[in-house]
Amino acid sequence: MATRPAALAAAAGVAVGVVVGAALSALWRRRKRAAEQVNESTIRLMTRVAIESGAVNLSQGFPNEPPPREMACAAAGALLCGASADSAAAAAATLEATGPRAEETDALNQYSFPYGAPELRRAVAKYYAQRFPGAFAYDADENITIVAGATEGFAACIRALAEPGDVIAFFEPCHELYPSQLALFGMLPRAVTLTAHETDWSFDAAELEAALRGARLFLFNDPHNPTGHRFSSAERRLIVKLCRKHGVLIVTDEIYEWILYGSDIDVHEPLAVLDPENVVIVSSISKTARATGWRIGWVVASAPRTQRIRAVHDQLVACVATPLQIGVARLLEMDKARFADLRGEYQTKRDVLGAALSKAGFDLGPEPKGAYYWFVGYKGVPQLQSLDPLAAAMIMTREYGVACVPGDNFYVSARRTDAAHGQRYLRFAFCRSLGVLQAAGERLAAMSV
Amino acid sequence: MATRPAALAAAAGVAVGVVVGAALSALWRRRKRAAEQVNESTIRLMTRVAIESGAVNLSQGFPNEPPPREMACAAAGALLCGASADSAAAAAATLEATGPRAEETDALNQYSFPYGAPELRRAVAKYYAQRFPGAFAYDADENITIVAGATEGFAACIRALAEPGDVIAFFEPCHELYPSQLALFGMLPRAVTLTAHETDWSFDAAELEAALRGARLFLFNDPHNPTGHRFSSAERRLIVKLCRKHGVLIVTDEIYEWILYGSDIDVHEPLAVLDPENVVIVSSISKTARATGWRIGWVVASAPRTQRIRAVHDQLVACVATPLQIGVARLLEMDKARFADLRGEYQTKRDVLGAALSKAGFDLGPEPKGAYYWFVGYKGVPQLQSLDPLAAAMIMTREYGVACVPGDNFYVSARRTDAAHGQRYLRFAFCRSLGVLQAAGERLAAMSV
Repeated sequence: MATRPAALAAAAGVAVGVVVGAALSALWRRRKRAAEQVNESTIRLMTRVAIESGAVNLSQGFPNEPPPREMACAAAGALLCGASADSAAAAAATLEATGPRAEETDALNQYSFPYGAPELRRAVAKYYAQRFPGAFAYDADENITIVAGATEGFAACIRALAEPGDVIAFFEPCHELYPSQLALFGMLPRAVTLTAHETDWSFDAAELEAALRGARLFLFNDPHNPTGHRFSSAERRLIVKLCRKHGVLIVTDEIYEWILYGSDIDVHEPLAVLDPENVVIVSSISKTARATGWRIGWVVASAPRTQRIRAVHDQLVACVATPLQIGVARLLEMDKARFADLRGEYQTKRDVLGAALSKAGFDLGPEPKGAYYWFVGYKGVPQLQSLDPLAAAMIMTREYGVACVPGDNFYVSARRTDAAHGQRYLRFAFCRSLGVLQAAGERLAAMSV
Repeated sequence: MATRPAALAAAAGVAVGVVVGAALSALWRRRKRAAEQVNESTIRLMTRVAIESGAVNLSQGFPNEPPPREMACAAAGALLCGASADSAAAAAATLEATGPRAEETDALNQYSFPYGAPELRRAVAKYYAQRFPGAFAYDADENITIVAGATEGFAACIRALAEPGDVIAFFEPCHELYPSQLALFGMLPRAVTLTAHETDWSFDAAELEAALRGARLFLFNDPHNPTGHRFSSAERRLIVKLCRKHGVLIVTDEIYEWILYGSDIDVHEPLAVLDPENVVIVSSISKTARATGWRIGWVVASAPRTQRIRAVHDQLVACVATPLQIGVARLLEMDKARFADLRGEYQTKRDVLGAALSKAGFDLGPEPKGAYYWFVGYKGVPQLQSLDPLAAAMIMTREYGVACVPGDNFYVSARRTDAAHGQRYLRFAFCRSLGVLQAAGERLAAMSV
């Protein structure tokens, strides 16, 4: 049965024999020296020189003619009418018959620059400049890398900015990806506890400072999954100060940046506003645009760090789907009031789900102030109180027809035996249509009959 | 200046401090034990159980409502009319006004299963079953992982199937990605020389066998980039036999599988036909569908290896762009005669470029029998003969207006001082429209005036 270590274990399916000989060390050292001088693939260099000098580019191996029309129409059908395979196929048929037709040449179905299409990088730079005028100046060429979602963005950042054996700190509960990716690259997780109080979650400053001693990176997620916590101005200032004091670079995960509730902090403020030099931003359009299946995000970092991040990113995925990058550039040009609308929409959904969970006996704990999850205590629910989190989630799914995630999934393995942390929660997502949430509410209501 | 180690250096920008303490080793061992028991993320497990039991799925954090129409239309415009940003924007405007409209729900713009949409995995399974009936039986659920192009496919395979410190063998010249990705994961490259003769390239069986001793993986690319070599039936049988003898798992790179010339081997035959148990296939639609910018490929492997590959893939990218997966499923349903047509098309292009290179004084060497590159000697070209490969490529690009790649880019660093290997070649791609190749031909002709 998969329990909390499932994600770790998945990583460990590839776990590492760590005995590495002197020859390898020497090789690393040699390569590291070379890295200080150059940082671009030769094929990419030739493409760049070709563009600069107006040469016919026979360096990189991409065609300049369009892909089969049937394939393009099928994908376009899925983009436009994604309710089901049938609706996508019907839209594809319409597009094949009457949709716009390709010219003889093609560029936008081919490799973009590995670090992203210029249109999209410019749009990301403008997005930050408009939202936080004067706070920092990000350059499309120097500071921005388009990545295959925040997932790949994190993988590239972690590998580029830390080394095997390094300690990486973060708050727990945390996304299951953090410990899994660290395992992939031979790095060590160190968790700092978030504790629930009546209306909010908090951390202990001394515990945070102890965790930062000797750490290389601090991974920071705000708004926070799974708790819905949004870090206060004082908390954010403290985090930035302690990381700076201990020489720990911050990598942020801001994918819920537009999904906010409550009035005390009305706009999401990236930690980078407080300390642009010591913060790397990772974000994505998955949640803002309701397009978790597009796999497009970005990393914003200083120029030297960007070079390293781009090198790893290039080796992991080459580049991100070019035609979808064009779509995302369009998204970022849209009126941001459209993004802010998400707030009201999700707040309604949050309240519908919260009311139903409360009625069924769950302990709601602090109300989520961002993101779209309720991380609720289940020990007061008669049907669940004697069960461990996985068993409770299974019963909820199989018996009561509402699937959720066991809370210990969001805690690193060392904590699993501590009954105070992670052993009493289930996570429910409320990023579904109201109809779906109401159906869930009816099933939850049946639990207390 | 970026020379051959550029790619290595890019990897080494993140090069690894390899001294790792006993505590880390213990951690790896503990995780490895856990890995033997479980291998699935808990969130994914809950989604799967939700589907099986018909529960309302509030586990995974994806919406079920469509993304903004403007964004979807912009991406669809790029798919259908990708010649330029302007043509894509015009198509997007048409689609916004008159294109198919989304229903209230959405699935195909959201996460697919991390290992790929069922439609596409089924299409890949059928693709192999139809091409090589009876040779092997691949199951969509057990053996196939949809990856973000062969690049990510290789990253996932290497990390899943070998460990830091392992030796990985391959023929050189090789794709620059192989040594770079190995550096990313702390693995050691070991190259086996391919040598040019009048009409073909060959390798030394004793050198291959020596390289395989103690190696973990053999990376095999057929049709071969940059040489255009296609391995004969006897060569392929020998490779399979020696890998089997020395317990070396083979990972193949078959992205040029439909781009073939010459009549002696008319159909590409994967090594997996010869030894399904000891070969992992990596391929992609980038070259077959002229869609290098879609980033969709697949890995085919035994069920236990597939589990490990999926775990790494999940942590690197979560999943691959869902709407594009739907397009690729459609591609694989098309009549394969369409793919085979690539052969005649590229053969014409090859011959146009080859004639022009020969006239300019390049030594064509063995004619490419697959893929779409000429790997030509430049030491007989008066303007280039005294230059090293990078300088020669720069002069070709800046002075003569035809960009190419220096040959030493395809050799691992240890070989760079060996004048016999890698110091005399340039690589020219002929995957462009005939008009572009003719323009290159005119510039090449001007060199011999």
